[in-house]
Amino acid sequence: MQAVVWDGRVVAVDERPDPEPEPGMAIVGVSLAGVCNTDLEIARGYMGFRGILGHELVGVVEEGPAEWAGKRVVSEINFACGSCAACRQGLGRHCPTRRVMGILEADGAFGERVAVPVANLHAVPDAVSAEDAVFTEPLAAAFEILEQLTIEPGQRALVLGDGKLGLLVAQVLQHAGATVHAVGRHREKLDLLAVRGIETSLERDYTPAKEMDISVEATGSIAGFDAAVAATRPRGTIVLKSTVAGRHDLDLAPLVVDEIQVIGSRCGPFAPALAALASGEVDVAPLVSDRMPLGRGDEALRRADEPGVLKVLIECEA
Amino acid sequence: MQAVVWDGRVVAVDERPDPEPEPGMAIVGVSLAGVCNTDLEIARGYMGFRGILGHELVGVVEEGPAEWAGKRVVSEINFACGSCAACRQGLGRHCPTRRVMGILEADGAFGERVAVPVANLHAVPDAVSAEDAVFTEPLAAAFEILEQLTIEPGQRALVLGDGKLGLLVAQVLQHAGATVHAVGRHREKLDLLAVRGIETSLERDYTPAKEMDISVEATGSIAGFDAAVAATRPRGTIVLKSTVAGRHDLDLAPLVVDEIQVIGSRCGPFAPALAALASGEVDVAPLVSDRMPLGRGDEALRRADEPGVLKVLIECEA
Repeated sequence: MQAVVWDGRVVAVDERPDPEPEPGMAIVGVSLAGVCNTDLEIARGYMGFRGILGHELVGVVEEGPAEWAGKRVVSEINFACGSCAACRQGLGRHCPTRRVMGILEADGAFGERVAVPVANLHAVPDAVSAEDAVFTEPLAAAFEILEQLTIEPGQRALVLGDGKLGLLVAQVLQHAGATVHAVGRHREKLDLLAVRGIETSLERDYTPAKEMDISVEATGSIAGFDAAVAATRPRGTIVLKSTVAGRHDLDLAPLVVDEIQVIGSRCGPFAPALAALASGEVDVAPLVSDRMPLGRGDEALRRADEPGVLKVLIECEA
Repeated sequence: MQAVVWDGRVVAVDERPDPEPEPGMAIVGVSLAGVCNTDLEIARGYMGFRGILGHELVGVVEEGPAEWAGKRVVSEINFACGSCAACRQGLGRHCPTRRVMGILEADGAFGERVAVPVANLHAVPDAVSAEDAVFTEPLAAAFEILEQLTIEPGQRALVLGDGKLGLLVAQVLQHAGATVHAVGRHREKLDLLAVRGIETSLERDYTPAKEMDISVEATGSIAGFDAAVAATRPRGTIVLKSTVAGRHDLDLAPLVVDEIQVIGSRCGPFAPALAALASGEVDVAPLVSDRMPLGRGDEALRRADEPGVLKVLIECEA
């Protein structure tokens, strides 16, 4: 089959063997896949991954248990062992021996087919189009914040970063009842939130004032950390959504003086994400900047790396 | 009166006017005061403070409301306005216009007398000696962790740092039901915990293994941050108790990948600290390394800065 492969040097469209059906796994025929910043990070060396890229997909089960055959599905990305202490506590996303689709020791979704654990499948409601369903994984990452924090109605929430994840986080927090202020560098991206009644500011016009109950760092780098600290009230919370590796020059003393809580936040629950897509609470359609066929998957990644571009979709259907 | 003064250049014992009784304030005749690492930090330029140092004391009310006159007391250190939004929420320790005894715009306790808000006074139970009561403020800082976190019986807690604060934190967490492992650089300090049944390791013998539910960074620098990250399980909590200023080269990505929570923790509640001293749950007596009269207060600070020294007390009574 055709697939987009990272070999440690270049991203290229290549021929790869079809995935083998193994016990507990299903083979999903990929319809649409989405390019994430993590894919671009991997192609810069992050995680040391080699293989088929991609972890955001919607598709149809081609092989697997009868009850799943032919179903339209999305798939969680952490392949957990199911039996360790973390898994037994329901924390499979933190299984220490997990593989991660397209990120860690498991081939990803930028191909005609992908193998995923049956336990990771979620059926896509009829009301959700493929173009929307492909956002389930990143939207779940936004919903993870609601798993970690209780949002009180009217709490002031700052979202730093107007990339894909920031735009999803801002909508999720607004829907959870927070009064959201989104700060970014692109007027046209912020306007996607402004039309939904979310207050927006260009970064250069925003002055942090120690007033936010919650600040979400979603700039895609650690650049927003200092701004988040300066924006958050004493005893407030900072959520870190950027997984960029590397060491940075940071001052943690204000966290102690103001007793601020910092929570790292990664993958999230698929069920509320699918429900929000079905109900239309979250609007992902305006986030699609471009779509390309699988045969141009390498170009799709380059396109996703251009300034101003949001989600690039890859049409994987053979 | 005699007092230990930091003028921005040197710490010296000097003559200073007696504090004036103002509305809402009491004058406390200081019996004993304790030297804290923060005092040493201030004498290196931290906070830009000038004036009488010291914020750990026990004494007797000399002037103030009749119901307090002659009472043996300790005093909270944050002088809050009492009327702002933070104060109305019971967060006077985070009042944005607060003064802080011996730290920020308010003279401290290393003198014969100190002025403190009546609202900050706590009566010392008869069962608590002056030598123990002078530890109320740092012990309250250890109890602050219990205000911020719920400790489940048997949770594994790591305490990094065997300085004064680390030794108090380890005892408080043990009493709260945690299984504590204390790591430091001084066998003789760790032994003060080992005799209480707390597991201890020298830093050079300790290998972090992502297994701790809670890790407390109390090294007095940010040195322990990386070790705390490496020691804490996914979804675990790191408590930062070190308020050393400055920027440091840190990697926050593991916080995101493992969804670790970091909580800054500063001053704490006096009531549980006094109760723990009264019941003997926490043993502070072995932490006293030395005591000196007020006239040698400058020497007391130099002594507290020597390696291996724990608490140095200053006898302030005229």
